[in-house]
Amino acid sequence: MGTAINKNINPLLTVIGAGPGDPELITVKAVKALAVAKVVLYDALVHPDLLNHAPKDSIKILVGKRASFHSYTQDEINKLIVTYAKKYGNVVRLKGGDPFIFGRGKEEIEYAHSYGVKSKIVPGLTSATSLPALQGISLTTRGINESFWVVTGTTKSGVLSSDISLAAQSTATVVVLMGRNKLSEIISIYKSLGRESQPIALIQNGSLPNEKIALGTIKNIEEEVLTKKIGTPAIIIIGDVVNQHHDYLYKTIEQNLRQTNYEKH
Amino acid sequence: MGTAINKNINPLLTVIGAGPGDPELITVKAVKALAVAKVVLYDALVHPDLLNHAPKDSIKILVGKRASFHSYTQDEINKLIVTYAKKYGNVVRLKGGDPFIFGRGKEEIEYAHSYGVKSKIVPGLTSATSLPALQGISLTTRGINESFWVVTGTTKSGVLSSDISLAAQSTATVVVLMGRNKLSEIISIYKSLGRESQPIALIQNGSLPNEKIALGTIKNIEEEVLTKKIGTPAIIIIGDVVNQHHDYLYKTIEQNLRQTNYEKH
Repeated sequence: MGTAINKNINPLLTVIGAGPGDPELITVKAVKALAVAKVVLYDALVHPDLLNHAPKDSIKILVGKRASFHSYTQDEINKLIVTYAKKYGNVVRLKGGDPFIFGRGKEEIEYAHSYGVKSKIVPGLTSATSLPALQGISLTTRGINESFWVVTGTTKSGVLSSDISLAAQSTATVVVLMGRNKLSEIISIYKSLGRESQPIALIQNGSLPNEKIALGTIKNIEEEVLTKKIGTPAIIIIGDVVNQHHDYLYKTIEQNLRQTNYEKH
Repeated sequence: MGTAINKNINPLLTVIGAGPGDPELITVKAVKALAVAKVVLYDALVHPDLLNHAPKDSIKILVGKRASFHSYTQDEINKLIVTYAKKYGNVVRLKGGDPFIFGRGKEEIEYAHSYGVKSKIVPGLTSATSLPALQGISLTTRGINESFWVVTGTTKSGVLSSDISLAAQSTATVVVLMGRNKLSEIISIYKSLGRESQPIALIQNGSLPNEKIALGTIKNIEEEVLTKKIGTPAIIIIGDVVNQHHDYLYKTIEQNLRQTNYEKH
C-alpha cells in the first residue's frame, strides 16, 4: 500500500452499523467500539452526533456515499481502510443501517483480509425493519402474513429484481430499500398482478425529526408521494400490514373522496 | 380491569426490542427507556443483565415465552400490561429480537390502546439479520443476490408457511426463524426443487458465548445438525451467501470426504 508498517500496530477493521438515522438507535456495543477507534471512516447518512462517541484525537473522514454523490469510490474506501489500519491500528467503518444489508460491508472486510487486516462486525438496525416499526407498522402480524421480503431498488445491473413478482404472489410484506426512483416500475408490476388496492407506504428520513410518510394504495400512492414531496432516501413498504398505520383509514377515505369527487364512497 | 385508576398515573406501554441475545446488542434508546420503567414484563430469551438497566425498585416479571414453555398466555400478558400501566404508569415490555418481527408486539399495543393505554416502540436488532452478520454471512452481497426473505417456521396454524416454496424459487437469501423443528420439511421443499447443493446454515444461541453453528448443503445439513447437536432456539439461513462463512469450504470438503469414503472429491 506504499505505507511503512509500524510493528507496534495491530491493524483492525471494525465495521459498525449506525442504525436508521436517530443517533440513539445505535447499539451499546457500537458505542463501545467507537470509543476505541483510531480512525473513523463514515458514510453521509450517519448522524454527526455519533462521531462524538469516538476519541477526540481520532481521525474522522466522511467517505460518502449516498444516492446523489460519491465522495470516494468503493475502491478508494477499501484502500483507505488498509492504509489507515496498517498505520494507526483500529479503523472503524461506520455505515448507515446495517453494514451487511445492501451495505457492501462484506466487500470491505474481504479486501482488508486480503491485506492481512483482521475484522470485527457490530450489526446495526436496518431501516427495512426499524422504520416501519417506528410508524406503528408491524412487518409481520399473526393472522395477516407469515413473512417479509427485503429487496434493493438499486441493483448492480440497474434493473429491478425479478424476485419482486414471486414476492407479490406470497403473503410477504415487501420492503424496497433505495427504491424511490423505481416507484413507477414497482407500481406497474403490482397493477399487472391486479393488486391495485394493495396498501403501500413510503417513509423518508425515517426516525429523524424531518421524517415524512406517504400512505395509500398501489392505485393512488404516486399522487400522495407528490403531495407529501417524498424524496430520497426513502423506503417503500407494500402489504396488508400497512393499513395498521393510525392515519391509514383516514388517508384512504380522504383520497377516495378526492379522487371520485364525492361521487362514491 | 378491576383495578382502581390512580389519577396521578400516566398509563404507558413501552415495547422494546432486546436484540438477539448479547446484552450489548441493545440500542442506547432502549437502555434509556428501561431506565424509566415502573414495571418490566420480559420474555425468557431476554438476557438477564438487561434488567439491570431498569430502576432497582421497578417490578420485574418473567412472562415467558419460548418454544418449550408458556409461563403466561398472550391473553394474560395483555391483561397484565393494562393492569400495571393503570396502576403504576410506564410498563416496559421487553422482548427478544425485534418486537414487530414475529414478536406479537403489535397485538399488545392494540390491546393496550383499546383500554386507553398509549404506547411507544423502540425497535431492536432482529436475529434474522444480526446473527448471520456476526458469523460473517452477509444476507445480501452485490453480484450474488439482491434480496432476503424472512419467514417464520411457526405459523398460527402450525403448518409451515407456503411462502417458503415461493422464497425457495427466488434468488433471495431465505432466513427461517423458529424453524428448527421444521428443518426436514424445509429440506424436502428444496430437494423437490432440485436444490440439493444449496448452502445452508443453522445458528443456535447466536451472539452468546454458547453459540453453535452447523454448515452444509441441503443434502447433508441434517447429519451436520445432529453432529453439532443444534437445538432450539435456532435460525436457518439458506442461500449462496452462506458459503462466505470462513469454515464453509473446509466443512464441505470434510463432509464430502466423509460421505463418499474417499471415493471421490
